Amino acid sequence: MESTTRPLDPDTINRMVLDGFPGSRNRCVEVGSDYAVAHLIASDADLRPGGYISGPTQFSLADAVLWYLVFGAIGRMEPMALTSELSIRFLRPAIGTELWARAALDIAGRRNVVGSVRVWTVDETKPCSVAQGTYALPHQPTPMP
Amino acid sequence: MESTTRPLDPDTINRMVLDGFPGSRNRCVEVGSDYAVAHLIASDADLRPGGYISGPTQFSLADAVLWYLVFGAIGRMEPMALTSELSIRFLRPAIGTELWARAALDIAGRRNVVGSVRVWTVDETKPCSVAQGTYALPHQPTPMP
Amino acid sequence: MESTTRPLDPDTINRMVLDGFPGSRNRCVEVGSDYAVAHLIASDADLRPGGYISGPTQFSLADAVLWYLVFGAIGRMEPMALTSELSIRFLRPAIGTELWARAALDIAGRRNVVGSVRVWTVDETKPCSVAQGTYALPHQPTPMP
Amino acid sequence: MESTTRPLDPDTINRMVLDGFPGSRNRCVEVGSDYAVAHLIASDADLRPGGYISGPTQFSLADAVLWYLVFGAIGRMEPMALTSELSIRFLRPAIGTELWARAALDIAGRRNVVGSVRVWTVDETKPCSVAQGTYALPHQPTPMP
Repeated sequence: MESTTRPLDPDTINRMVLDGFPGSRNRCVEVGSDYAVAHLIASDADLRPGGYISGPTQFSLADAVLWYLVFGAIGRMEPMALTSELSIRFLRPAIGTELWARAALDIAGRRNVVGSVRVWTVDETKPCSVAQGTYALPHQPTPMP
Repeated sequence: MESTTRPLDPDTINRMVLDGFPGSRNRCVEVGSDYAVAHLIASDADLRPGGYISGPTQFSLADAVLWYLVFGAIGRMEPMALTSELSIRFLRPAIGTELWARAALDIAGRRNVVGSVRVWTVDETKPCSVAQGTYALPHQPTPMP
Repeated sequence: MESTTRPLDPDTINRMVLDGFPGSRNRCVEVGSDYAVAHLIASDADLRPGGYISGPTQFSLADAVLWYLVFGAIGRMEPMALTSELSIRFLRPAIGTELWARAALDIAGRRNVVGSVRVWTVDETKPCSVAQGTYALPHQPTPMP
Repeated sequence: MESTTRPLDPDTINRMVLDGFPGSRNRCVEVGSDYAVAHLIASDADLRPGGYISGPTQFSLADAVLWYLVFGAIGRMEPMALTSELSIRFLRPAIGTELWARAALDIAGRRNVVGSVRVWTVDETKPCSVAQGTYALPHQPTPMP
């Protein structure tokens, strides 16, 4: 079917997220079968004294980019893919107003997708946090409009 | 000194947080030398379709309650205590509009404080997530006004 | 059936483990529907200079006690329950020659069981490590002799 | 000084480990300033029914390769570098009799070193587990003979 052979692209994902999850503040900027990249512009509420982006904001972007990775890895958007577990390590202050995250696929199984994430503000080689986590897939694909 | 012998109470903590971190949306409701409890009222942006509270919102409360636990464990507010790492497991949908979290102390060392967290909406015996994590303490106590 | 109503006991579990996993060096000492306790006597290979029990040995006991917790939580031995993920935090040197671990149930779902673990040598209130982790259950119960 | 300018090599590390930690069964096969590779030949006690290498054995190798990564990252052997925390995710059965692990540096700070690990048996692109973890460095370098 066309819908399964047409590769996913960030615009399609961002439209679905905007429709279904209006509270989401990040966007997918790249997605492939084994990686994804997401981006977030920090709001005042994300900033801590000293001008660094809070840990929970970093977590939210790590969680989102893993979700996009799931879409890329299974070849379809699956809003009912849910985080099972996620561990995050904070490495250095996230000085800046923009946040980027890249997820790399570790495995896409029938029940779970596991990936590793790097989060940074300006220089990808100087990440402010790294994470690893698992998304659980639903037994049946969720019907999409 | 008065400041070190007067036990910490939630009001003192909440005042410091409100002053220094105006973006914070949770509050400390209980704190002792080996535990803390925090509470958050979900906003629209925290809710996912179906009415459950998002994973990142749960993470943010788990992270906050561990911070309050640090204050209780070391006997003073320490805004420069920073999360080193935190792992969270999502157990069931967080159906509701309020979120609670309880942290229990695992160890308070010279450099780190480790604690375990349970997060729930209505019934503490049915947690929506559990977490464990580490806060790093600064070398020198941060002077407080 | 008798086999499902007869509660699990440590002897039954230890016999199964001894038969199926002869390399195992720990034993289950307590098990219930929401907890388990395991015990290990350290060998020379488990000890590090200074006489403390190595991190991997602590991990192996944390992993084992979660397996026994799974058996207690689902009410049957399930050798094909496999660790999905486990995170461990080392709190203080594990001085001693015996190691204990207690697992508490966080959730027993259809696909996964999650639990929290404390590991200690002499005093349970002074754990040498804490852990949290997930076991995945097979789709079908494994037939037991 | 000669000792700081001579780059670390696997033989030097393996000699130290063999001397100080005779129970260790793995060896370092590569080390650089931002990576390390370790190798282990499984013994009977490492194998589970069906011929796969146990989770705790995989953990032990992940833990060891992070230790070697610490040595490479700080430019000296530091036996008192200790694991603070390590989380591991098991992806597929570790079928085989040999185990490999590669650690990549996430950050080398003054107090901590964080790295990400991939563990495999035959094909590095099909890891049996992935891990992330933190080593704590001692305040003072440990004098080496």
